[in-house]
Parts: sequence; C-alpha cells; structure tokens
Amino acid sequence: MNKEDYFIGCFAETPFIGDDAAILNDMCISQDAFFENVHFKREWMSLYEIARKAMLVNISDAIVMNGRPKYALLTVAIPKHYTRKELKELARGFQETADAFGITIIGGDTIANIKLDISITIMAECSRPILRSGMKEGDLLAYTGRLGESRRDLQRLLRGASVNPGSRFVHPVLRDRFFYKAAPFIRSAMDISDGLFHDLEKLHRANRLGFDFFVPIPKPVGCSGEEFEVLFAFDPRHEKRIRHIARLTRTPLTVFARAVRKPYHNLCRPNHF
Amino acid sequence: MNKEDYFIGCFAETPFIGDDAAILNDMCISQDAFFENVHFKREWMSLYEIARKAMLVNISDAIVMNGRPKYALLTVAIPKHYTRKELKELARGFQETADAFGITIIGGDTIANIKLDISITIMAECSRPILRSGMKEGDLLAYTGRLGESRRDLQRLLRGASVNPGSRFVHPVLRDRFFYKAAPFIRSAMDISDGLFHDLEKLHRANRLGFDFFVPIPKPVGCSGEEFEVLFAFDPRHEKRIRHIARLTRTPLTVFARAVRKPYHNLCRPNHF
Repeated sequence: MNKEDYFIGCFAETPFIGDDAAILNDMCISQDAFFENVHFKREWMSLYEIARKAMLVNISDAIVMNGRPKYALLTVAIPKHYTRKELKELARGFQETADAFGITIIGGDTIANIKLDISITIMAECSRPILRSGMKEGDLLAYTGRLGESRRDLQRLLRGASVNPGSRFVHPVLRDRFFYKAAPFIRSAMDISDGLFHDLEKLHRANRLGFDFFVPIPKPVGCSGEEFEVLFAFDPRHEKRIRHIARLTRTPLTVFARAVRKPYHNLCRPNHF
Repeated sequence: MNKEDYFIGCFAETPFIGDDAAILNDMCISQDAFFENVHFKREWMSLYEIARKAMLVNISDAIVMNGRPKYALLTVAIPKHYTRKELKELARGFQETADAFGITIIGGDTIANIKLDISITIMAECSRPILRSGMKEGDLLAYTGRLGESRRDLQRLLRGASVNPGSRFVHPVLRDRFFYKAAPFIRSAMDISDGLFHDLEKLHRANRLGFDFFVPIPKPVGCSGEEFEVLFAFDPRHEKRIRHIARLTRTPLTVFARAVRKPYHNLCRPNHF
C-alpha cells in the first residue's frame, strides 16, 4: 500500500470518502490542493494560468459528479515578495474562472508562505449525483477528448522545453456541455486525473469489475495524468444517443472497453507518494 | 493597505466574505490554512498536537458564529519521508478532534510536499448565525479566558525555549459550552485569532463603532494572537445572565468596554503580510 492510501486508511470509514466529491444534502463538495513544485512549477505557467488551472481541476470534480458548481472557498499561500501586479493577476485567474462557471467565491484564507500553494473547496448543486460506483457488467466504457498531450507536455516542461500555449496541461478543457447532456444515460463517471489506466483501477475497485478492451490503448495514452477528460460507463443501449451528444457538443469520444467480471492490472507506474 | 487586504480586494464583492465563515442555506462554511513554518514549527509540537490544533482553529470559527460543526474536508500536504507511525499519529489527531466535536470527515486531498501544510474546511449547521456585524451603540464588549499566554509561549518557542505541555498555544481551549448557552443574548462575536486589539479593529470596521475601555488592557494581553477565546458584544441588560452562564460553565469572563461612536486605533504591530 502506498503512503497516501495508508494515511487515508487511518481515518474512520465514511460513506462519503473516495469519490471525486462528498455528497451532502444535494450538494457535492470537494477540496483539492494545487501546490507549487508538486502540481506545477512557477516558470511553467503565468500566475493567471496557475489560478485558472487550480480552479478548473476542482470544478472538474464537480462536473463529473453531475454537479453544478456554485460556490468556492480559496486558501492561497503566497510568497511575501509577490508584487501587487502579481497578486492582481492571480486574483483575476481565480475570479474569471469562477465567473465563467457561475461560481461565487464565498471565502477562504490568505497567508504568506515560501511558495504558492493553493487549496480550493468547490460546492456544487448535485441533485442527481453520478458516482464512481454504479457500473454494471456489460456496460461500455468511454473517455472524452484525446489523451496523451498532458503527459507529453509535462515531460517537455520537466526537461526545460516549452509547450504550446494552448496545451491541455496548461489549460484543461472541461467537458461540462457534453457531460450534463449525457448524464441521464451515464451510470458511473470520474475525471481522468491520475491517468486512464490508474483511474480505471479506481472504477475496478469501486465496482469489482474488470474490462475487456476492444480498442487498444498505448501506454503514453493510458498513463497520461491531469487530462481532466471524463471516463464513464453506460448501458450499451444508450451508445447511439451518447455518440450523438458527443457530435452535437463537438466532443471527441472513444468507446474502448466493456465491463466484465475479471481482475484488472494497471500498467503505469504509481504516481502517488 | 497590506498585501492580504489588497489581494482580497481584487475579488468581486460578495455578501459572504469577511466573517469567520460564509453562510449558505443554514450552513456556516469556513476554510483555514495551518502551514508548517507559518503557523507552527515541527519541533514545537507533536504531529498529534499539530493535527488537533489545525482542527481546533477551524472549529473555533464555526462555534463563534453559533454553528454546530458537522463535516470537515482535510487537505494535507505531507513530507515524503514521514513514516507510517507519523502518518498514523497525524491522522489520529484529526480523527479524535473531529470525534470530540461530532464532526464527520467527508473528504479532502493528500499530497507529497516539502513540508506539512494543512488546509481544512469545516461545515457547520448554523440556523441562527451570529456575525461580526450586529453590535449596537451602548453594547458591552467582553472576552472569555485569560489572554496573553499564547503570545508569551509563541515568543518562548521562537527563541528555542520550551513551554508548558498544557499551553494554550499548543492546545487552544474552545468555549463552545459557554458560547452556545450565551448565544441568544449575544449580538456580535468573533474568535480572537489575530489578537484582541487587532480583532477589535475588525469589529470596528464591521460596525463603524469604537470602544470606551473601562478595564485597562496591557499590550501583552491585547496583542496576543491565536488565543481562540471569544470576543463578543451584548446588550447591557443581558450582563447578569451572561455572567451567570460564564460561572455555570467555569469560563473566565472579562467585560471590558462599551461600544461608542468614535474612531479606533489598533496599538499592535500588523501581523499579516
């Protein structure tokens, strides 16, 4: 067991933990960290882009649970030397991203720190939540978008090269338009944050089902994390309808596997501490 | 204006920001950071004590708004070298403190980091919230507990000396028993986190009223932060009742000033970046 799983296992079991968000009275609530030198390096992105991505990765959790994000709390630890211009750019990244999704920033905390560490809580209206569990034997598995760019661009950044300004690693594209329309036909969903193969392992654990792949997925695609595309399962009788919604919303869609009773082994290296 | 106020001023105004917690549908929601080398040093406290204090300072915000804390989300950034024993001790500090207040930990995030940085969101049932605003001219001001120990012990720790294991700096004592009983007679409240004189400035701003002190308060008392005692205002006709509740719950109480129309100047040095 890795240390993260060990630490989480030290807590009392609750019915809420383990999904992308906890569900309470028709609200989905999630909290995620976006820390300098853990999730990003300062030289990779502008402060505006950092604040935007911090918001987007949190909003992504709400969307894949079929929640409408409404409120955010921001805790921002900021180096003392940041200028007012830098603070303003950072705030603009948070505020404009919140505005784009109709989110009101209702509170949080600001402290001085040696690096820029962001922690965000998103509260979403979630009257018909979609969980990781819920997948049934025979369901089809699909993901949105084209996977692989995020990992490739992360590797470029790590060796000091630059990436396209429109890179998904810098600017994740969320699939809210597709997902909300398709939600009535989806049984189980999560966002691809650790990588398709990693995240399939979570679906496997939540549903005790494995997968028969009928589309081969190369490792650079299956092991690419931080894609924030949607991985989901649905009853095969909805395939046509879901493909139609994907075309309508111009969302690339790959239907790649079927849920079956068998074990599953993730081929990627573990990426948690 | 300090950088913290400047940064907060960059955001769209919302009716929620500025109190100890935001209020949403009978819930009080607050998020606070508790970061290594910002709020504590590793050698000052055990991991159990760090986790406990991180929880308590967040729970304090809920209590002084007259909220009953119900749920917590924890984001914990942990150094990679922490052993399982250390992780267990940390988790125990969070869990036991949550249990003591009837709080369910519903989610959060765990990441590897260079230092131990904790960010907690507390959600509290809050059907009759008490705000910072609400104080009226002629109201009496009071605080619970004996102030000064936290500052004195912080100074000891900063110069490498040790403190009493029961120090309020290590183990804040919350006044939930007193406060919930007294709440029907309280018009305005907040916890003393930055120091009495600092926090009076916040009451001053929220209510446009100053204070006539009839109990002299020395600077080492008025400038002592992280006390997590309660500062509150009430109609003088409730004084007897409030003093009675304080005796009943064995809560030291100092009624020290009256709210009047005049300016207020905080005598302490600013402690935010």
